[in-house]
This record gives sequence, structure tokens and C-alpha cells, in this order.
Amino acid sequence: MATKRVVVTIPASPAVTYEIIIGSGVLGELGTKLTSLLNPRRVTVITNDIVWETSGAQLTNSLDRAGIDFDLISIPDGEAYKTIETAGVILTALADCGAGRSDPIIAFGGGVIGDVAGFTAATYMRGVPFINVPTTLLAMADSSIGGKTAVDMAAGKNLVGAFHQPSLVISDLDLLATLPDRELAAGRAEMLKAAMLQGGEYLAAWRTGITRVIDGDLELTAELLERAVRFKADVVAADARDTTGRRAILNYGHTLGHALETALDYAQLGHGAAVSIGMAFAARLSEKAGVCDAELVRATEELLRQAVLPERPPALKAAEIIAIMELDKKNEGGEVTFVLLEDFGRAVVRTVSRDLILSTLEEFANG
Amino acid sequence: MATKRVVVTIPASPAVTYEIIIGSGVLGELGTKLTSLLNPRRVTVITNDIVWETSGAQLTNSLDRAGIDFDLISIPDGEAYKTIETAGVILTALADCGAGRSDPIIAFGGGVIGDVAGFTAATYMRGVPFINVPTTLLAMADSSIGGKTAVDMAAGKNLVGAFHQPSLVISDLDLLATLPDRELAAGRAEMLKAAMLQGGEYLAAWRTGITRVIDGDLELTAELLERAVRFKADVVAADARDTTGRRAILNYGHTLGHALETALDYAQLGHGAAVSIGMAFAARLSEKAGVCDAELVRATEELLRQAVLPERPPALKAAEIIAIMELDKKNEGGEVTFVLLEDFGRAVVRTVSRDLILSTLEEFANG
Repeated sequence: MATKRVVVTIPASPAVTYEIIIGSGVLGELGTKLTSLLNPRRVTVITNDIVWETSGAQLTNSLDRAGIDFDLISIPDGEAYKTIETAGVILTALADCGAGRSDPIIAFGGGVIGDVAGFTAATYMRGVPFINVPTTLLAMADSSIGGKTAVDMAAGKNLVGAFHQPSLVISDLDLLATLPDRELAAGRAEMLKAAMLQGGEYLAAWRTGITRVIDGDLELTAELLERAVRFKADVVAADARDTTGRRAILNYGHTLGHALETALDYAQLGHGAAVSIGMAFAARLSEKAGVCDAELVRATEELLRQAVLPERPPALKAAEIIAIMELDKKNEGGEVTFVLLEDFGRAVVRTVSRDLILSTLEEFANG
Repeated sequence: MATKRVVVTIPASPAVTYEIIIGSGVLGELGTKLTSLLNPRRVTVITNDIVWETSGAQLTNSLDRAGIDFDLISIPDGEAYKTIETAGVILTALADCGAGRSDPIIAFGGGVIGDVAGFTAATYMRGVPFINVPTTLLAMADSSIGGKTAVDMAAGKNLVGAFHQPSLVISDLDLLATLPDRELAAGRAEMLKAAMLQGGEYLAAWRTGITRVIDGDLELTAELLERAVRFKADVVAADARDTTGRRAILNYGHTLGHALETALDYAQLGHGAAVSIGMAFAARLSEKAGVCDAELVRATEELLRQAVLPERPPALKAAEIIAIMELDKKNEGGEVTFVLLEDFGRAVVRTVSRDLILSTLEEFANG
């Protein structure tokens, strides 16, 4: 498989440029890339116990071959550990390792590891170099791109964090071999979101290829992943600090999705399922708001079915869901902001009335 | 007294500009300034119990007159509370207040409050507007300028933090009336550092005015403070993220100063005393390193005496001090980097041998 390389440039002063390497076995490049980019005397690897047991040897080999010493900080697996307390434990461990201002931090894990390790890289000594080696399709397609780092608070997910762009992202598809289907589905949902937001060639390639991706075709997985990554990287480059509104379209399907995850206490529903249901709902709401026609709703449901993703929510109370959406940090002043689609490739950000959301939710939940 | 206004512009993309207002009674401007700058629906004030008891009414009045509601988060007084745990408590309280992405955080206190409140402003929702109302001369002269926010770790002071420029700094000299002399001395030490680093007119004004400043002349205090603020603001603007080395000169006197504070467990020696002794030592080391002549050492000691600041360390073990300096985060690879003076106004950053530091320290400690 040809290795794919996406170069991301964030306009800033000075400009930030980094490479996302996608392919089979590309973790082997980590050590040499690190040496040529940063020439570190040592690095710190932040991972979780399960990832390390499954795939630690591959990362160790890559660093060993380049002669790079590392300290390992391993945290327990799961979103429950994406907290300020875990960040404190990691920051203390970094100090205990004697990590210096130019010693890179490598995140080796899924989105939780990337977010919390990224947050410690953003704040240890007010910022040290950060390398992300995502081990889930979701993290490869979404959270590893864009420089958002975060920890959760009881009052909300990702409520505390920092912007901190990585120096390098290595997405090795071989790491996906041991991933359970629920994790792969979460990645597919974010990739499908990107395909719906971009439309055109990407959506056409998706329709042609997704069934073979589900059957395990890594070549096609890499191709669709690269398209998702390029799409997100372009959006992020235009709005690195999430201030101009451009980046808001990436929340397509997430307003309801996050509310479902919160209502169901994060664990019961997977992120992929939550976003998938959220996209089915956003299409429905787009139609009700007069933004698109019924064909988009039908096409959305077909795309979800083809990707083996759910399109209907579990039993839910519409009023409870709307209460949670109003608390979402993306909303100011009590109104609910939604990303809607005029068509695939044409997203618009609109404020939608509480009544329309409630009636659409009730209809949606009942079929 | 004429109010002094220093405008700081940090070249970035987009550029960051903010005003530092210095004067008597300028806290009264807080509410109207906030309205014109940010027009917030509400704000969060972060303070400590002692500051709030002494001066809370003045801040409350200023916000009330502008019709700005606020929530109060008060933490215990002291450097011992400048921790990641305190940051976690504040972040949780911010979420509990329902603080939004555009709701400013106002730090109302000394350097500890400014640093930890600034860190929470940098990280809550990945950054919210930050206003600093320093209540000590030290914070007015030093930590409120430059956008460095931080918390301490057991392994070192300011080991975790973020760069986050304030939107406004209000330094009301009336707040200094209740400050103990040890706190005023700390501010004088940082101002004297700035005068030594800049030399010229500022140092001349210092020599003429400092005795009257100590006697409580607020007009002259404002004048010398404005000069210190302008000096630091210029250095920071040239090196906002502490990457080009320009900002390193601000560590003059701090390499030994921080080591003394660590050796004496922060509490025994005040920061002002530590930095003063550090500057006396740095002048001595500059001479021993052949960078300046003996006249600079003599003039430094005279400036310290005139400012009623110490010039000799308490009993210390030179070997212990050097061990701490080698652990300081500003040093890479085991050598000790020092800011030295060729003359007042001409700082240079040099790597100094362990042996020269040790012999100079031993001579210095013994008179």
C-alpha cells in the first residue's frame, strides 16, 4: 500500500506545519521522523494499559531503531479517565521523568489518550512538542487532527483544554486489526460525516468503497481516511482556534449526538452510534426547517444503512434531550444552534427554535 | 495623579492588543472598561479570602455601577494553593456558575491569583477572556504583564501553565495601602531589576525617586511602575512565547533567586529578598566571568541598599544551591545558563561553568 502524506499548514505567526502519515506499517517511521524533525534526546510516551499490551512492541521497536530513549506513562483505559485529575497525574510523572522543554510527548492510543496527553503537552512547561500516534479509526479520522486538546469535567465533555497543534501524526492502519467493531463504527461515522459535509468526489468514493472497507480492505480504508483527514485539515486551517465559525460545521450530527451520550451517561451508546443518529436527526431537522428536501433525509438514511450505522435512537425522552442541548457549551443565550445541510457538500449553521426541535425529536423517536 | 495607560501589542495572527491602566482609584474604571471592551452579560471574579475582605467592596462597586453581574470564586491565600488541584477546583466552580465561552474571568489578587486564575482562563473552554486586577506591587510590576500563566508542581514552580494574554490590566495603587513591607519590597526588587536591565533614563529616575517611593509617594510610585511595565511589555512583545531568547533577560537575578527560594522552602525568604540577593550575586558572577568590572558590583550593592533590599544571602550551602540550579527548568543538558550584565542596560545570556559558580557562591556567602 502506498503511504499517504497530508501536510497541514495552520496560518499563524509563525505558521505551524505538520505532516499526517497514513498507511500500513507507518509506525515504523516514527523514530526516524522524530530524529529528523526534533532530534530529541529522549521522549515520553503516554498510553493506556490495553493499547500498550496490544501494540507497545511496535512503538518500542521504532524508537529503539532510532536510538531514542523513552519513559512510559500509562493510564487506565476509558473516557472516565479523561479528567483534570489524570492530567495532574501525568504532569507529575513528566516532572518525575525530568522531561525538559524540548522533549516531545507522544500520545499512543485513541481519542482519550490523544486529548489528555495533548493537554499535558500544551501545558507542561507552557507547551512541549506533541506527536500523536492514534490507534483507533475514530482518532485517526477526527480527534488527532485540529489541535484541540481537552479533559472532561462533570459539567461537560471537553470543558477544559487548550489549542496545541501536533508536530507529527502517524496513523498506522495495522493497529486497527484488533479493534472491536463498535470502535470501527465510530470512525466510520466521523468519516461519513466528512463525506456528507464535502459531498462530490469524496461522497462518490465513499458510496463505491464503504462496503469493502467494512470487509477489511485496508487500501480503500486508507483512501477514504485520507479524504476525511484532508477535509478536516482544510476546515481547521481556516479556523484554527474555532473563532470564525468555519469550524462549527464539524459539529454536524454532534448536537444531538453529544446530548444522547450525556443522557445515556456516555457508556451505553457508542460515539459512532450517537453521531450517526445525530446525523439522521440533523437531516430530518434540515427538512423540517425548510433548508433541504425529503430526498436528503432518504439519502442520509441509505448512507447510514450502507455503513452499518444506526439511524434511529434508543428510547429517549425528547424533553430531557433538549434540556441537555441547551446546556451544551456551543450555545449562547439559551437558543440551540444546529448545523444543517442544504445538500451534501452545503452545510449551514442555523439557530433553530426549541419547538421545532422538540416536535422533530418526538416524531424522530417514534419512527 | 494623572492615570497612566500602557498599550501592549503582541505581534501574532491576529495581533493581540491590551491596555495596562496604572493610577490611583483606577479600579473604578473596571466596570465601564469591561462594558466597552467585551460587553459581558456576566463575569467571574477569582480572588483570595484576604484580598476580598480588604478590597472586595471597591471591585464590587465598580462592577455594580456598570450593571455587570458576577460570581465569586475565592481560594485560600498563599503560594501553597497555586496548584493543579486549585485550578481543578476553580474550573469546576466555573462550570457550576454556568460560565460561558465569552464570559471574562477577572483575577483580583497578587501573583498567585493572577497565575492560577490566568491558567483557568487559558484552559476553561480552551480559553476565555482574562482581566487582571493585581493587588500587590510585585504583580503590578511583573507577573500581570506578559501572558504567562502557571501553577506549581512539587518538582518546580510554574512547571505547568499556558500563554494567555489578558484583555485588560488595571493596577490601582490605592490597593497597596494595606500591603506589608515585605510585599512592597518584592515589587521594588522586580522594578529595580527592570531599571538595571534598561539602564539610562529609567535607572536615573529610579536613583532620584526610590527613597520617596519607599516613603509612600504614590505619584513617583506610578511613574517608576509605568517605566517597569513599559520595559517588560517591550521585551514580551518581542518574544511573546519565550522562544527566541529575548525574554530570557527577564530572569536576571532569578537563577540564584529561585534556587534560594527552593532551598529555603519558599516561605522563609520573600521573593523580593531572593531576587535582590540573586542580582547581587549575578553582578558578582558577571565580574568573575570577565563580563563587567568591579564598579558594576559596587553600584548594584548601592542600588540595593538605597532600595532597602538585602544584598547578602542567609546562611546557605553552596553545593546544595548549585544542585537546585542545575534542576531549574531553564537549563538544558546540565550546564547553568545565567543572565549577566556587561553594564546597566546591557544584559547578556551566558553558560557559566559549575566551578566558577561554586567558587563565586562560596566567596559571596562568606561576605
